[in-house]
Amino acid sequence: MIKTKLRPRKLKELTVVERNEIIKRCEAKWDEVIDKIIPIMQDVKNRGDKALIEYTKKFDKADLTTKGLEVTKEEIKEAYTNITKNEYNMLYQMKRNVSNFHSRNIPSTWTEKFYSGKAELGKQIVPVDRAGAYIPGGKYNYPSTAIMAIVPAKIAGVKEIVAVTPPKSDGKIESITLVAMDMAGATRIFKVGGSQAIAALAYGTESIPNVDIIVGPGNIYVNSAKKWLNMTERIRIDLPAGPSEIFIIADSEADPSWITRDLISQAEHDENSCAILVTNSEEIANKTYKILLKEVCTGKILGKKMSVVKKSLENFGAILLTDTLEEAVEFANDFAPEHLEIMIKNKSDINKILKQVKHAGSIFIGEYSTVAAADYNLGTNHILPTGGAARRYSALSTETFQKISMVQKLTKKALEMLDPGIETLSRAEGLYNMHGLSIKIRLRKKKK
Amino acid sequence: MIKTKLRPRKLKELTVVERNEIIKRCEAKWDEVIDKIIPIMQDVKNRGDKALIEYTKKFDKADLTTKGLEVTKEEIKEAYTNITKNEYNMLYQMKRNVSNFHSRNIPSTWTEKFYSGKAELGKQIVPVDRAGAYIPGGKYNYPSTAIMAIVPAKIAGVKEIVAVTPPKSDGKIESITLVAMDMAGATRIFKVGGSQAIAALAYGTESIPNVDIIVGPGNIYVNSAKKWLNMTERIRIDLPAGPSEIFIIADSEADPSWITRDLISQAEHDENSCAILVTNSEEIANKTYKILLKEVCTGKILGKKMSVVKKSLENFGAILLTDTLEEAVEFANDFAPEHLEIMIKNKSDINKILKQVKHAGSIFIGEYSTVAAADYNLGTNHILPTGGAARRYSALSTETFQKISMVQKLTKKALEMLDPGIETLSRAEGLYNMHGLSIKIRLRKKKK
Repeated sequence: MIKTKLRPRKLKELTVVERNEIIKRCEAKWDEVIDKIIPIMQDVKNRGDKALIEYTKKFDKADLTTKGLEVTKEEIKEAYTNITKNEYNMLYQMKRNVSNFHSRNIPSTWTEKFYSGKAELGKQIVPVDRAGAYIPGGKYNYPSTAIMAIVPAKIAGVKEIVAVTPPKSDGKIESITLVAMDMAGATRIFKVGGSQAIAALAYGTESIPNVDIIVGPGNIYVNSAKKWLNMTERIRIDLPAGPSEIFIIADSEADPSWITRDLISQAEHDENSCAILVTNSEEIANKTYKILLKEVCTGKILGKKMSVVKKSLENFGAILLTDTLEEAVEFANDFAPEHLEIMIKNKSDINKILKQVKHAGSIFIGEYSTVAAADYNLGTNHILPTGGAARRYSALSTETFQKISMVQKLTKKALEMLDPGIETLSRAEGLYNMHGLSIKIRLRKKKK
Repeated sequence: MIKTKLRPRKLKELTVVERNEIIKRCEAKWDEVIDKIIPIMQDVKNRGDKALIEYTKKFDKADLTTKGLEVTKEEIKEAYTNITKNEYNMLYQMKRNVSNFHSRNIPSTWTEKFYSGKAELGKQIVPVDRAGAYIPGGKYNYPSTAIMAIVPAKIAGVKEIVAVTPPKSDGKIESITLVAMDMAGATRIFKVGGSQAIAALAYGTESIPNVDIIVGPGNIYVNSAKKWLNMTERIRIDLPAGPSEIFIIADSEADPSWITRDLISQAEHDENSCAILVTNSEEIANKTYKILLKEVCTGKILGKKMSVVKKSLENFGAILLTDTLEEAVEFANDFAPEHLEIMIKNKSDINKILKQVKHAGSIFIGEYSTVAAADYNLGTNHILPTGGAARRYSALSTETFQKISMVQKLTKKALEMLDPGIETLSRAEGLYNMHGLSIKIRLRKKKK
């Protein structure tokens, strides 16, 4: 089955249905879960902490009745002693690198003179007051995600950063994740996950403060709760983040075993993940196909991950051949992948291709630029739009936590210059009575 | 009734309930309309243009069966001949000023060297492919809104800008609005409004292309449709824009008749609009109260607008007294108004206050900076978050149409530097197998 699914195909020989099937990948079925989570969110709104403790018992098998939802200073202290010196150092290095990247070129307030200096106009750029960061838990730990979600908020100047993550059944958070949350700059940390955590951050409870924006990836329950509460105007959210994706554009100079590793690196995340190679080299397509089959079917390196990778590649994998690199990048723009690797050797080719790239969450240029580096300590953000949302949404960054206000400071002279236009247009809109006259009254008055 | 409602009150003597009541203002009841519009949106998805023509007949009393939904070149040409020379000039001036402001300091792609020059990281900033602009119609015309919604998209580099507005019952769009849409840069214009227009832009129909983002204000049906389709991941939307609001902070030097005009300018929009004065001067509070009552109750200038203004002030108006200006700005931040006017004379006071302002859609500094100027030809944008959403959302601007991708270009050296961290952290996350090894395989290979 996987042999047929992955066998190299010509992109332009695909039927429209086949092409769209690839672009569609795994669609989030939010409508299948929304009816389940609305009562949970409503319950959290009504009963607060009490409801949270019950759901945490039910879903995470953790009893927080006596310990409470909030992580204590002692627990944080203990977590630091539980991790190895090396883990601490590497986390610290990652935090420093992510801080460093996210500190560059942050949009900031500006004003400029207009109307021959008679008016000053601009944009005020300020952070939200409070941000919530959802850090997934469960089967795996995500200390790296804690750093990616929290550090940009801190750099953007957010004063209160509330982090939440589901506890293990012993009522604790994995030490390395807890250290990452604290080190990144969370001001308060709570042991709660799922849609109940999102509801708590949106409505606020006795112990959890409500926030202005919620960021961070999660499962379908978490993502649907974010979207729902965004719609009902309780919160703003970051971006739709679902199963991981990689889209590799490669020419004949690329190394098929490197390509294979990168494809499988995404496929190992989830059976709904998506890994695609598009190349103008038949040789690269065939070689990658062979190595991929071998790695997946023998499972020597993959171990327990084998079945996940296999399913992911069977469901959403593809190796596609194009005549030109332009054709490949055109398809990439239609696909709008979370991660786009461009493994092209020729410099002028690379620059040409780069100019054509429009829609990708994160772009990796050249053979040494592998997604795994950016997943961890490189510094760029790994919380990215998936499922084609890169057509519309930004990667998580400091900008996610900022907002723009218009600023204007006028003199009487500026108003005089604008008056004829305001009069004409406010009359045309039937709003002259007051809009137009609010100018006139200022012009009539003697200059002070 | 209006006498009691507007009578100056001390802010700190309000009960918590009274304070929250003011902050709450008019809440959008999206849940009351969503069940009505879901079938309409579904119908447009299924039946396309046919459904649109039926709804336009039903809701706008316009029969487009033979003429079709799209505005023709001839109609646009005709519209230009229908408006006065003066209207044309003032529209053109407005478009030029809005273009001028929105062209300044646009975020653009950047990369910088990191890791002693061994890696290049940055952000790629590109516009969406297609934007939809909703221009309200009905009782009034909004040529100014057409310019505010469309010009920033064009400046941001959006290639296709699809504008929609409900037609009049004769199947036409008011000439001045049509000229504004065309002049601003709409690439296609359709005669359709309400939730059916939003659905058409989100799903696409035979004649209307689907878009990536929909911007522009509308009534509760339009806004709810935008939010719903945003949740279901068809589109991105700009910001929640409901009834207009003004919040004025004034000291003893402000002119009560100017204040009155500005308050009424917002109140005249809609009976759900909201106008609030907060001042540390008892004299200003009392004088404004008197003038306001006189203008509203005699209705000399207001004319037909009298009853709207009266209802708006009764429902959502307030005159509040504070001991200090700091207290006033603190309340402004809690309120997060669409428009904030700061009518303070003293320069050092103004600068102090400005630093404290965090949440407002648009900020007007000094007595000559009146909202009406920015509503029209000043250049700053008038599509702003309302209802407290300024705590979380930006004003509409070029940034609305852009998105940010991460960019990374690594050398082998950079990977070597990062390798220990990636190994440690990917092991901690249980993702070493492939993530860690995708680095190792690149390091093992001989340097080319």
